[in-house]
Amino acid sequence: MEHRDVIGEVVHEMAQQPRFGCDELPDRKVITGILSDVQAFMFPAFASGACVSERMLLEKIRWELARQIRRAMRFAGGGEALDPDRVADGFLAAIPGVYRLLTKDITALYEGDPAATSREEVIIAYPGFFAILVYRIAHVLYEMRVPIIPRIMTEFVHQKTGIDIHAGAKIGEYFFIDHGTGIVIGETTVIGDHVKIYQGVTLGAKSFELDADGNPVKGIKRHPNIGSHVVIYANATILGGQTTIGDHCVIGGSVWLTHSVPPGQTVYNRAEASER
Amino acid sequence: MEHRDVIGEVVHEMAQQPRFGCDELPDRKVITGILSDVQAFMFPAFASGACVSERMLLEKIRWELARQIRRAMRFAGGGEALDPDRVADGFLAAIPGVYRLLTKDITALYEGDPAATSREEVIIAYPGFFAILVYRIAHVLYEMRVPIIPRIMTEFVHQKTGIDIHAGAKIGEYFFIDHGTGIVIGETTVIGDHVKIYQGVTLGAKSFELDADGNPVKGIKRHPNIGSHVVIYANATILGGQTTIGDHCVIGGSVWLTHSVPPGQTVYNRAEASER
Amino acid sequence: MEHRDVIGEVVHEMAQQPRFGCDELPDRKVITGILSDVQAFMFPAFASGACVSERMLLEKIRWELARQIRRAMRFAGGGEALDPDRVADGFLAAIPGVYRLLTKDITALYEGDPAATSREEVIIAYPGFFAILVYRIAHVLYEMRVPIIPRIMTEFVHQKTGIDIHAGAKIGEYFFIDHGTGIVIGETTVIGDHVKIYQGVTLGAKSFELDADGNPVKGIKRHPNIGSHVVIYANATILGGQTTIGDHCVIGGSVWLTHSVPPGQTVYNRAEASER
Amino acid sequence: MEHRDVIGEVVHEMAQQPRFGCDELPDRKVITGILSDVQAFMFPAFASGACVSERMLLEKIRWELARQIRRAMRFAGGGEALDPDRVADGFLAAIPGVYRLLTKDITALYEGDPAATSREEVIIAYPGFFAILVYRIAHVLYEMRVPIIPRIMTEFVHQKTGIDIHAGAKIGEYFFIDHGTGIVIGETTVIGDHVKIYQGVTLGAKSFELDADGNPVKGIKRHPNIGSHVVIYANATILGGQTTIGDHCVIGGSVWLTHSVPPGQTVYNRAEASER
Amino acid sequence: MEHRDVIGEVVHEMAQQPRFGCDELPDRKVITGILSDVQAFMFPAFASGACVSERMLLEKIRWELARQIRRAMRFAGGGEALDPDRVADGFLAAIPGVYRLLTKDITALYEGDPAATSREEVIIAYPGFFAILVYRIAHVLYEMRVPIIPRIMTEFVHQKTGIDIHAGAKIGEYFFIDHGTGIVIGETTVIGDHVKIYQGVTLGAKSFELDADGNPVKGIKRHPNIGSHVVIYANATILGGQTTIGDHCVIGGSVWLTHSVPPGQTVYNRAEASER
Amino acid sequence: MEHRDVIGEVVHEMAQQPRFGCDELPDRKVITGILSDVQAFMFPAFASGACVSERMLLEKIRWELARQIRRAMRFAGGGEALDPDRVADGFLAAIPGVYRLLTKDITALYEGDPAATSREEVIIAYPGFFAILVYRIAHVLYEMRVPIIPRIMTEFVHQKTGIDIHAGAKIGEYFFIDHGTGIVIGETTVIGDHVKIYQGVTLGAKSFELDADGNPVKGIKRHPNIGSHVVIYANATILGGQTTIGDHCVIGGSVWLTHSVPPGQTVYNRAEASER
Repeated sequence: MEHRDVIGEVVHEMAQQPRFGCDELPDRKVITGILSDVQAFMFPAFASGACVSERMLLEKIRWELARQIRRAMRFAGGGEALDPDRVADGFLAAIPGVYRLLTKDITALYEGDPAATSREEVIIAYPGFFAILVYRIAHVLYEMRVPIIPRIMTEFVHQKTGIDIHAGAKIGEYFFIDHGTGIVIGETTVIGDHVKIYQGVTLGAKSFELDADGNPVKGIKRHPNIGSHVVIYANATILGGQTTIGDHCVIGGSVWLTHSVPPGQTVYNRAEASER
Repeated sequence: MEHRDVIGEVVHEMAQQPRFGCDELPDRKVITGILSDVQAFMFPAFASGACVSERMLLEKIRWELARQIRRAMRFAGGGEALDPDRVADGFLAAIPGVYRLLTKDITALYEGDPAATSREEVIIAYPGFFAILVYRIAHVLYEMRVPIIPRIMTEFVHQKTGIDIHAGAKIGEYFFIDHGTGIVIGETTVIGDHVKIYQGVTLGAKSFELDADGNPVKGIKRHPNIGSHVVIYANATILGGQTTIGDHCVIGGSVWLTHSVPPGQTVYNRAEASER
Repeated sequence: MEHRDVIGEVVHEMAQQPRFGCDELPDRKVITGILSDVQAFMFPAFASGACVSERMLLEKIRWELARQIRRAMRFAGGGEALDPDRVADGFLAAIPGVYRLLTKDITALYEGDPAATSREEVIIAYPGFFAILVYRIAHVLYEMRVPIIPRIMTEFVHQKTGIDIHAGAKIGEYFFIDHGTGIVIGETTVIGDHVKIYQGVTLGAKSFELDADGNPVKGIKRHPNIGSHVVIYANATILGGQTTIGDHCVIGGSVWLTHSVPPGQTVYNRAEASER
Repeated sequence: MEHRDVIGEVVHEMAQQPRFGCDELPDRKVITGILSDVQAFMFPAFASGACVSERMLLEKIRWELARQIRRAMRFAGGGEALDPDRVADGFLAAIPGVYRLLTKDITALYEGDPAATSREEVIIAYPGFFAILVYRIAHVLYEMRVPIIPRIMTEFVHQKTGIDIHAGAKIGEYFFIDHGTGIVIGETTVIGDHVKIYQGVTLGAKSFELDADGNPVKGIKRHPNIGSHVVIYANATILGGQTTIGDHCVIGGSVWLTHSVPPGQTVYNRAEASER
Repeated sequence: MEHRDVIGEVVHEMAQQPRFGCDELPDRKVITGILSDVQAFMFPAFASGACVSERMLLEKIRWELARQIRRAMRFAGGGEALDPDRVADGFLAAIPGVYRLLTKDITALYEGDPAATSREEVIIAYPGFFAILVYRIAHVLYEMRVPIIPRIMTEFVHQKTGIDIHAGAKIGEYFFIDHGTGIVIGETTVIGDHVKIYQGVTLGAKSFELDADGNPVKGIKRHPNIGSHVVIYANATILGGQTTIGDHCVIGGSVWLTHSVPPGQTVYNRAEASER
Repeated sequence: MEHRDVIGEVVHEMAQQPRFGCDELPDRKVITGILSDVQAFMFPAFASGACVSERMLLEKIRWELARQIRRAMRFAGGGEALDPDRVADGFLAAIPGVYRLLTKDITALYEGDPAATSREEVIIAYPGFFAILVYRIAHVLYEMRVPIIPRIMTEFVHQKTGIDIHAGAKIGEYFFIDHGTGIVIGETTVIGDHVKIYQGVTLGAKSFELDADGNPVKGIKRHPNIGSHVVIYANATILGGQTTIGDHCVIGGSVWLTHSVPPGQTVYNRAEASER
């Protein structure tokens, strides 16, 4: 008897709370399924499960993506501007270009990591490659102004790898992430070609730009610019939308940077550890 | 022939080792299922899968939770004190309160992250919110002295998000974690309201308090106190049960702190990176 | 109409790209299944799902492992030297030894973490233990020169725990990892007995040893040596194949080390955080 | 190219056909799930899978059933008269009565079949019992004027057992069906108590009652009445709404009957097989 | 020990037996999946599970079917004559025609069964309709000389409904099967339009046509011809390739016929049951 | 409110009924899994799913079977006499013999059915063969006096095929069942070699042998004896433990027989259908 009262009370109490969401949110499982399908189309030998028709895979991606975009637009209050079917077609058309970029990232990882024994090992077992792959896919949709879906994609790979690259970041060719755990790359970051980033690196915002209400200002350039041929070692932190790291710089581990660095510099923590 | 010998030998050799466990350990899959069900009850629009009856969901949570508590008590050698059915009822009764706390955390995340476009995006895609949600659920059970289950819950979300909040920590309202990867918040930590914590932050123990056998002393206050309106940037480390960070402090990235800081202070690494 | 053109074009464009892989790559799902089966054999009370025959489990492990080794050899272009069935038998024969090592690791975790309430809790809920377990299994295969499979195993647990221990590392008895998120331990690392490593620690390579083409030199000693009874606190970074940390050293949090430290030293960041 | 034309043509050609159905048909999988849940509630030891809460099971049955009734009403064009929640409650209230009837059917099968070794064997392995169980559940809904769902239930068990009892038939206590394959019992059949029916028996309609258009007249009494204590052997056929078989009759195998039989008679095929 | 001997002996003994099959037999699960997909394309409102793209469904059917045909040809030792991709395309092109036939069968069932309340009920719940649907699909492939796959399809629906229509039979429009359990329609049967067949009816071969070795002769006309507007009641048996039932005949229940019947006749068992 | 009362009342009312079963009944899913495993061992090319180790399959069968026998014995109140592990070993040892019998049944079906194009088609698509296969497996266990499990096995195939062969029947070599729907073969039936049985045939008991209480007498010979080289056509019924059909008899369709027939006779229904 007492039991039933508990349930009745809880249902009743919750019914009086403000609730979130609407009927048709984008579906995380379907969206991660789209990622798998794109991956299976580009690297079929690596897809687990049965071999499938390329055409069927693309029809499925187009269909599922268009439906999720429709949901995402309603959810985000947008939708006047986007034609989901057209966006889905545009996404398909972008796949070969993404693939060409990824083959360069594979080269960067294979040549940059002494432990890598083949390009296939990079594809099958490198979390950094998985994170880059998902970022490049999500970035295509971000550029087409698709709401929420790119974020769900990058958050998925963040959970898998601990690497959090915002879909809005602009990242050049031959990008190298190795172990990657803890990497954060913010929305307005710009990264050149042939850049290597190690685990725990943050390319973030200074959080001090507040609006009149004390909240962070939205929609401005908040994250740094990284030139080409830059190496950033583990746990370094580079903050701020006006912070620019020049080409061929090397940023040492655990360095904390909130100002720009001219090209060709090596920055390290002055304070080497001392013994006692 | 040789083959069978190998298997026979291995079985025989293992049979002579000391073994662990008992028949009825708590079941991780069921426990993470309880988490999903609580989440589905609080945020039904975000639950993947079919829409279900609220009453059925609560009956299921109560039933499953009571059974796992019974297993957990046997496992932990306790059990004289707890009535599993009563604890399960108490847990149900606590859900609306947890929900109210979570709506405040959602506000903190939405207002605190310039990249957040809606409260719904926070619920669907922020690992920090997922970690806080699970922590707040686990904390209810921790407070009721349920053994092992809160730990299994927080370890689950740790694996998903890289955020490791011990269910025993006491955390105030409007708690903000963004990317979160690598955050560790220890069992005896106390955190005020409106606190923001970035990725890689450790609120931990100094490991030097050993007992006569050289092992760490158990059951004492080992983790710091954080006041209200404190911001702790990426990779900062704050250690020790007597370390107190006052209200309105800002702790810089990669800072290493083992002493208290009075209210209103900003602490940063003196050693800025230098170029050469 | 337009729709079909998109798909036709994408298929056609992809058909002209260089593609990766071969028919029979090792299967990640099967390999993680082998890990689960070994775990279920060693710690049956902790395996979720129905109780199964020990003999059947071992037959299954042997069969699956031999088949994956055969695939891995073809994939890696090796295979002349290894007899998959013989390797699988050797792996089975090594299981009791791995189990004995793991019981010592459990002791290290139970005695080293004040929050641990029982050895069983360590087995069921400690990510550090899960990472060590998988590392020790993968290391057996690495030592037998099995290609790619050890890497797939350790990458699996890396995704689950954020702990990335290369299967090639040599790690002594009573190894302690607690939360562990962000730990990276490189391929040629050597670690003694009774070592404790906290989250965010990197035991890595200095990346400056390049060959004539500007790529990192492969196959040389690149990662540090850690003595016995060493403690390394959160986010410390120790780099280089010639870097040796002596027995009984304590390395402080966020320390960055590229040179050797003699036995018994405590190394900390000279630059304590300052307030302003 | 040719390929794509085929698909385009098929899609186009189908788009011009008249199509069936509406958005929200009753869902066969959910309806058979309700059957399983009712069975699990009544005979929990026989339900495969984990033990569940009785209350949860009933909440689920009520919830699922009410939703399917709502769909069924829309589908059938009815719905003004039925309150789905009230019907679902009425169904729950009827379960103990159905259970009591089933215990009597179990007795009839156990005592009537020399091969039955226990009542539990009847429950676990007799297709006749399974068919009666589903019929009795479906009949409750039929009596409450729920459209289509009773039919889906009995068709499900028809596929499993080859026994097709229309949910509208009225069947007394202690009903006995053994192997049962091929039994057909029509909608307006009335059967007394303690009746035994063997495989291949049809209690059907004479199909000659046509309306002005030459179609069978709907909604009239078309199937026979069977008294109490009647035995009907394999492959007998009894047809017609005015055909009444009196109490204590025995109808022989393969008999074809379109007229009534007074109580106590034994009817057999005059034409015994002859040899040559 | 004794245990292992048993297994060794069994493996050894089996290894000496002649074995059946080859590597790549047609896959029953895939083939029944093709049936489901065709059904979902034709009657989407009745398909359980999520709504899918029509184009994707057709791509999938074509792909899967072509692969199974390739396996079937190798299995059957044929294959020189058939082009699997061309056959799959031809199959797709035939779907609208099959659909048109099925709408007529639905009409026959709806108008012919007084218990049917709507055409949708026929589609969702009539085993006879399911059997006809699968027969008509299988017949298309049979006509294209695809080996084994049509048989696997009709055997699938045989298991579900107890209705066994050989894919080779030729069946006209407006075909009516109601309950259907036990119906057998042989390979060389020819059936006209507007025919009704009740449960247990066999349209079979006389088994006496043996070859020189005493085995039945293959590849000849062995099953009867049924005219248009014929009704065949339950458990009737009509045998022989030269047996022709004329238009507008009615064949009574349990009748056994091995000779032809001229148009317009009613045939019944002379031997009505007698009482005693 | 009213809702909750319904559930409370139903739970309460059911709690007062007598209930069936005990904790550990044999598990139908596991038992049908054993059937699949035996089938996969004997006909590996026909097993869907991945190729597995023969030794592993046999270990699994032995383990699962022994556990189900243990449950079955407790359930049946027996158990003093049987050693489950020994029975399981005996079952394994019997598999090659069953396989040899099945190869003869395959020959009988291939040679006896003009529609069969290969032995493989018989294995993959003939319900009659599936029923014989399961019967022969179940019969081994029946002969070893294993309770209930043989019945669950034959009831499983009965649901799939509509063919109900009691595991206790004794059936000779080269047994032929074609479509088979509706066949019933009782527990004490004895059948010779080279027998063909068509759909709808019952080899059953006369149900008139009652004990003092009016219930059928258990444990006596109730079903007929069929000689060698006998053919029994569709829907024939042969009843009674003393009924013996001599070698080389042919029993016509729909014949009803309760007396013995000497060798070499052909029995048909005297009453051929007449026209009017």
